[in-house]
Amino acid sequence: MSRITSPTGRLRSAPENFLTQEDIRAVNAGRREFLRGSLLAASAAMIVPRAVLGADGDPAILQLPSWSTTVGQPVAARPYGMPSEHESNLQRRELPGLSKASANSQSFTPLQGLLGIITPSGLHYERHHQGWHDLDPAQHRLMITGSAALLVRRPKVYTLDDLMRLPPVSRIHFLECGGNTGIEWGNAMVPTVQYTHGLLSCSEFTGVPLRLLLEDCGVDFAKARYVLAEGADGASLTRTLPMELVESGEVFVAYGQNGEMLRPENGYPLRLVVPGVQGVSWVKWLRRIEVGDQPYATREETSHYVDLMPDGRLRQYTSVQECKSVITSPSGGQTLLGKGFCNVTGLAWSGRGKVTRVDVSFDGGRNWRAARLENPILDKALTRFNVDWVWDGTPALLQSRAIDGTGYLQPNHRQLREVRGTRSIYHNNAIQSWQVLASGEVNNVQLL
Amino acid sequence: MSRITSPTGRLRSAPENFLTQEDIRAVNAGRREFLRGSLLAASAAMIVPRAVLGADGDPAILQLPSWSTTVGQPVAARPYGMPSEHESNLQRRELPGLSKASANSQSFTPLQGLLGIITPSGLHYERHHQGWHDLDPAQHRLMITGSAALLVRRPKVYTLDDLMRLPPVSRIHFLECGGNTGIEWGNAMVPTVQYTHGLLSCSEFTGVPLRLLLEDCGVDFAKARYVLAEGADGASLTRTLPMELVESGEVFVAYGQNGEMLRPENGYPLRLVVPGVQGVSWVKWLRRIEVGDQPYATREETSHYVDLMPDGRLRQYTSVQECKSVITSPSGGQTLLGKGFCNVTGLAWSGRGKVTRVDVSFDGGRNWRAARLENPILDKALTRFNVDWVWDGTPALLQSRAIDGTGYLQPNHRQLREVRGTRSIYHNNAIQSWQVLASGEVNNVQLL
Repeated sequence: MSRITSPTGRLRSAPENFLTQEDIRAVNAGRREFLRGSLLAASAAMIVPRAVLGADGDPAILQLPSWSTTVGQPVAARPYGMPSEHESNLQRRELPGLSKASANSQSFTPLQGLLGIITPSGLHYERHHQGWHDLDPAQHRLMITGSAALLVRRPKVYTLDDLMRLPPVSRIHFLECGGNTGIEWGNAMVPTVQYTHGLLSCSEFTGVPLRLLLEDCGVDFAKARYVLAEGADGASLTRTLPMELVESGEVFVAYGQNGEMLRPENGYPLRLVVPGVQGVSWVKWLRRIEVGDQPYATREETSHYVDLMPDGRLRQYTSVQECKSVITSPSGGQTLLGKGFCNVTGLAWSGRGKVTRVDVSFDGGRNWRAARLENPILDKALTRFNVDWVWDGTPALLQSRAIDGTGYLQPNHRQLREVRGTRSIYHNNAIQSWQVLASGEVNNVQLL
Repeated sequence: MSRITSPTGRLRSAPENFLTQEDIRAVNAGRREFLRGSLLAASAAMIVPRAVLGADGDPAILQLPSWSTTVGQPVAARPYGMPSEHESNLQRRELPGLSKASANSQSFTPLQGLLGIITPSGLHYERHHQGWHDLDPAQHRLMITGSAALLVRRPKVYTLDDLMRLPPVSRIHFLECGGNTGIEWGNAMVPTVQYTHGLLSCSEFTGVPLRLLLEDCGVDFAKARYVLAEGADGASLTRTLPMELVESGEVFVAYGQNGEMLRPENGYPLRLVVPGVQGVSWVKWLRRIEVGDQPYATREETSHYVDLMPDGRLRQYTSVQECKSVITSPSGGQTLLGKGFCNVTGLAWSGRGKVTRVDVSFDGGRNWRAARLENPILDKALTRFNVDWVWDGTPALLQSRAIDGTGYLQPNHRQLREVRGTRSIYHNNAIQSWQVLASGEVNNVQLL
């Protein structure tokens, strides 16, 4: 049983969310025992007032748990804290077989168990091209140069100390791999939201606007048209950004994430933040910015991160992540614990601004109801939605669709395939469907 | 040297931020070597373009660091990630001697090294009355009853599963111990912002409004006037809330913090969130809510958490945290690395709503300049401010003062003492002063 139900989440079940029929029966049996069980356990867990147990109560069930009768652990027992041992099921996970080498692969964020919009940094998804290092920040530098001498009048090399003296910005933004939900383009399907949508996170980032650094280096903005960003990992990952994006002031060189320094897996000590744009452009372990007047056409934007269109041509230089949403709970691999009220929750986001509305359907898209959006609703950040649902015990088909400030409505699978075919990998923002069976089981299904 | 300067922060120095003169000389010497050193190190850290090193460069210094030439660690090497090893100095810390027993004490958040407004959960401050436990959520219950039978028509016991089915809210709020900055009431002073203001954190919390639970239990709101909240720790910590506060809908029973379940040190699996109110009312390991029609006058609001006023009377039932701000960097124990531009950053907050403005002074309060407030600016949440400063190498006195939406202006020490004397412990929201010496050293000083 302990493998099945994380004790804290009605639906935050199983490490991989693969439940056996036996597991489900056990969960349901537990549910039927709820009223009796909870009262018994409650009486063991607290001082029971007379109103509940009668005038004298039963001395035998007034035994308190150890945490109510003993001295606990001291402050700073853990100078840097960790989640409860009871939550150890909630992990980022690799999808076995997805890549030939785990140093060139992904780990997925367990969206099915997350709350609110902030992703705990310890559960932030990973996408490495040649593995990650905890590199020495004292040795790390950021160099800014030009492809031609006159483009950058004062090429510079910055230490981290230099960058941290400059005026910073702090902003909450989502970060999504362009390949998120890519497995679902064809007929392949993965069972859980961790694997369908888990290349997605949202953090508060802190750093220095790239525009400010370019100004500091005397960039000739009249001639400069592109910026090349290069990482210090073995892959020397490089991506190009158009200068207009940098000039907008939105792009920044981040050292902070969720209040502290970046994590090694997320580019410590420096990464690019390119709000709304696919993750590969958020170059990690950033060591070099080159300003140019012509496109760079790097490997990661011409050979990789391209999509084969129905007419045989390649769709290149994709960047902005389209408006998208997904119900995170209930979701594939989870099991409803019983009929009755069940909050339905999920995430919505758009690379083009704010989410303005999320609709939820319980019948596969025939009828839609507006969900409640939690504050804050921020530009190019995840938005949490919740919607009331009373499950009557019959099968249901759950979907969500988001609308952003541009009026764009998230498409369904059929609409997306009509335009882009089935041979793409990237930028799948189709509506996700979760099938709820009468047993309470939830499965990933594609409605075509 | 490695003990002195966290390599990533120009000012994020030393575990305890106690620097020797030798340390400071070493830091300053390092600074003078910056230009030459950074170019050498930079050349070792990246492929150096001709524009910087000349036509041929020097092959000897083109050696790349290991992280650029080797395969790194695979994805999910750490299913739950941790900060860089180079950041291990950034810890929550107990102040030795403050309490007789560490199970009844505080650990402080290292504000001097934090960025943005979200506090990493692993660095969230602690205040325990009888230590912390990682209690078993499957055994934990929340009971809601009335002090008299008719006040609560349907007393109930909730499991965590029950609570997580209900419609949740997610909100970002600060949490401050009423005793924060308490050491500074008298003439005692602590050297760093971690110890002056580190009983302060800010998180995104998720949970169920207490009002909803009371409605579910059939509370008679016409008669009910108070709510008693009780924790499951050995201290059975109890605090009273006025019913109006609960009816406002702001108070909620939280299970989530920063995207995941609460941490054990912060009340896992359930704690009360009482936005704007001092931390002791945010009862951890919440096991019982009792609805009453008379004040409870618990130990923690009559004997403790009270302040001795100049006229000898006790100030009781304090709750709302007043508008307050502090410069977190540069701050006590840090050392400026050199003259020139230096971003000054800090935090502001108010228990009565939003921060509308923060002023910063560099001359002990004679002249003030408006700081830049980072978005989002949220109700009863930390607000990050930044202000440009060019340090000319002469002594300076840094202060910040915040104003909230009610028009309240943060007072200085003298003003606060005129009203409340010097024998208080709680609710010290005075303006903090940091003295910058010509050497670059920063010290905690009180201007009276």
